[in-house]
Amino acid sequence: MGDEIGAFVPGPRVRIEGRTGGPLSGLTFAAKDLFDVAGVPTGGGNHDWPTGRSVPSRHSWAVQTLLDAGATLIGKTITDEVSLGILGENPFDGTPVNVRAQGRVPGGSSSGSAAAVAAGICDTALGTDTGGSVRVPSSFCGLYGIRPTHGRIDVTGMLPQAPTSDTTGWFARDGETFAKVSAVMLGEAIPTALPTRLVIAVDTFGFADAEAAAALQPMVRRLSGLIGDSREDIMAPPGLSVWARAQRALQPVEAYATFKDWLDTRNPRMAFSVARGLLAGAAVPASEHGWANLMRQEARARMAHLLPAGTILCLPTTPFPAPLVGQPLSVLDPLRDRITCLCAQGGLAGHPQVNLPGATVGGLPVGLSIIGARGSDASLVAVARALAAQK
Amino acid sequence: MGDEIGAFVPGPRVRIEGRTGGPLSGLTFAAKDLFDVAGVPTGGGNHDWPTGRSVPSRHSWAVQTLLDAGATLIGKTITDEVSLGILGENPFDGTPVNVRAQGRVPGGSSSGSAAAVAAGICDTALGTDTGGSVRVPSSFCGLYGIRPTHGRIDVTGMLPQAPTSDTTGWFARDGETFAKVSAVMLGEAIPTALPTRLVIAVDTFGFADAEAAAALQPMVRRLSGLIGDSREDIMAPPGLSVWARAQRALQPVEAYATFKDWLDTRNPRMAFSVARGLLAGAAVPASEHGWANLMRQEARARMAHLLPAGTILCLPTTPFPAPLVGQPLSVLDPLRDRITCLCAQGGLAGHPQVNLPGATVGGLPVGLSIIGARGSDASLVAVARALAAQK
Repeated sequence: MGDEIGAFVPGPRVRIEGRTGGPLSGLTFAAKDLFDVAGVPTGGGNHDWPTGRSVPSRHSWAVQTLLDAGATLIGKTITDEVSLGILGENPFDGTPVNVRAQGRVPGGSSSGSAAAVAAGICDTALGTDTGGSVRVPSSFCGLYGIRPTHGRIDVTGMLPQAPTSDTTGWFARDGETFAKVSAVMLGEAIPTALPTRLVIAVDTFGFADAEAAAALQPMVRRLSGLIGDSREDIMAPPGLSVWARAQRALQPVEAYATFKDWLDTRNPRMAFSVARGLLAGAAVPASEHGWANLMRQEARARMAHLLPAGTILCLPTTPFPAPLVGQPLSVLDPLRDRITCLCAQGGLAGHPQVNLPGATVGGLPVGLSIIGARGSDASLVAVARALAAQK
Repeated sequence: MGDEIGAFVPGPRVRIEGRTGGPLSGLTFAAKDLFDVAGVPTGGGNHDWPTGRSVPSRHSWAVQTLLDAGATLIGKTITDEVSLGILGENPFDGTPVNVRAQGRVPGGSSSGSAAAVAAGICDTALGTDTGGSVRVPSSFCGLYGIRPTHGRIDVTGMLPQAPTSDTTGWFARDGETFAKVSAVMLGEAIPTALPTRLVIAVDTFGFADAEAAAALQPMVRRLSGLIGDSREDIMAPPGLSVWARAQRALQPVEAYATFKDWLDTRNPRMAFSVARGLLAGAAVPASEHGWANLMRQEARARMAHLLPAGTILCLPTTPFPAPLVGQPLSVLDPLRDRITCLCAQGGLAGHPQVNLPGATVGGLPVGLSIIGARGSDASLVAVARALAAQK
């Protein structure tokens, strides 16, 4: 397969055949350039990242798991610099083309993985999601994508950002492939039984652009039809912006802690916006960080109460479809902040979340998300498969 | 001439012959990559700087002036990114070798110009000095160098940083060449008459490393012998660190204003430390900036009072010789802050300053500076020439 859309990191393409006879035999996958592949430098989306680091001698857990299941690795995909970005514009490796939304960003930071799957170059692809890095590109590229329960998937060999929020996720174009890959990655069969109660997070729909909220309504109705008993509720009693504020204190503080030795010893080149984000983490006062940790406790309690076994919640994955590429920071920053308002709950509370494609605004994809109890990942995948099978 | 020391910007070397029969005929010069040369993109030391900018159609004033005087341009030299740096380590174009201090930085931001002159690749070279960018590499590379009176030299075609502090300067290895080039650049003959009174800024010697202060004493004695009547005084009554604090409020605020549209529209790649410096400018409170402007007024009044016509002041140019290359930011940041304590008066008060080479600490050059009244640039050059002629 070629790379006409610029989804893969520049240079020779790695290819590793999957084990024969596995459940994913015949499928191809790509790995975001944050996952170690033995013998290949992990680029991290920043050309000063690999300097002075040894080439991995072992595959990351996620890559090894897909290879063992029979899928063939066909390349490493572009990521926002050290996963710091939500839009997918990378000045070192380039911005992958979003074939579902021409002239628009693919979303990030798992930009190349989403773009490659959307373009049909591979069947599935590995991403990471700390603050939305699988969810956002899933929404912008019209894909199935999962941010699993935090702590469930082994992150060995995955470049970390903010460990209390980091997760490994994956993408697929269709519900059946999504279910097959998910069963392998989760180590659990995808059930046929579905959740029985749907909570609609009305505040999140009110927060999205009116056109996006309207475009998602038919999907919400189909979901209600599938799940049955439905009721409305509010997701974030203190306000989505308060949850986002808490996550913007927790995640950058951890990211700065992760990268500060690199910054100090290498003084690496990076996009201005990436440096700005890291310095924002360095500047968070201890009092703000302390407050954010209390808010995380509250958010976890609230989400656990809201989502007992058998209940799922739905919300727009992003407040709007993919923005245009190449816009100034002064345009993109407010958009990024709004995305964070919908995504913050993932890092705060650690519940699994699946993006369901199907809606469009002016031809551009926008996704509906479902969230369940911690550990209910397979149940969310079951809903995705069932909804896809209805079409 | 080759470029074994990596002083010139990568790529084809520009060469423009000087006018025949000029006062500088037979001399060669290099121009820091912040000066426009017609037909050559101005690189600015950052690979994302030239993007979207037109190639200059005219030479900068300084380049045209040297060409008209007969000097031949032999290349453009490496600079710290958009002049933001004082050590001369550039991740895009490389760090020029300081032949006078092996394994040490050349100083910046006029790193390549100083390195090329020190290595004998050209006779003179153009630099810029906002916060020390000619003075520091002069000191570290053992060169004559001048930061002229602010506002005296036409900066047309020179990439600005902080206009109320920006100046155009130049380097030379010997006193005669320094005088010849200075006469052309200043448009004024270098006088034979010398100043008659020397002020020794005792606080600045106390601030320098003891070894550097001691190494400079023989030069101070020679200067006293040359000028005659000598007395000691204090330069910065509020404290060097207070002047440095004021300059660290004024210069970064202006630098951020200069570059903010570029940051917004291009989100350029830059070393982490450069982004950090720009963001420090963005974060200066109006109250701090207002205070810094008042301190600038005080500094100007103090320096004008201290330096009537015929009086010069001497101080260490830098508190120490060139630091080792490749050190972590946590080591370099405190060194940079100490350099600023000696250099801040230049940007604050705008007086001319000349670095005199000759002293060494453990074989590494460290310079003695002389400062005179505004407009007394030629008189400072006369001192440099006279002192050189004594050897």
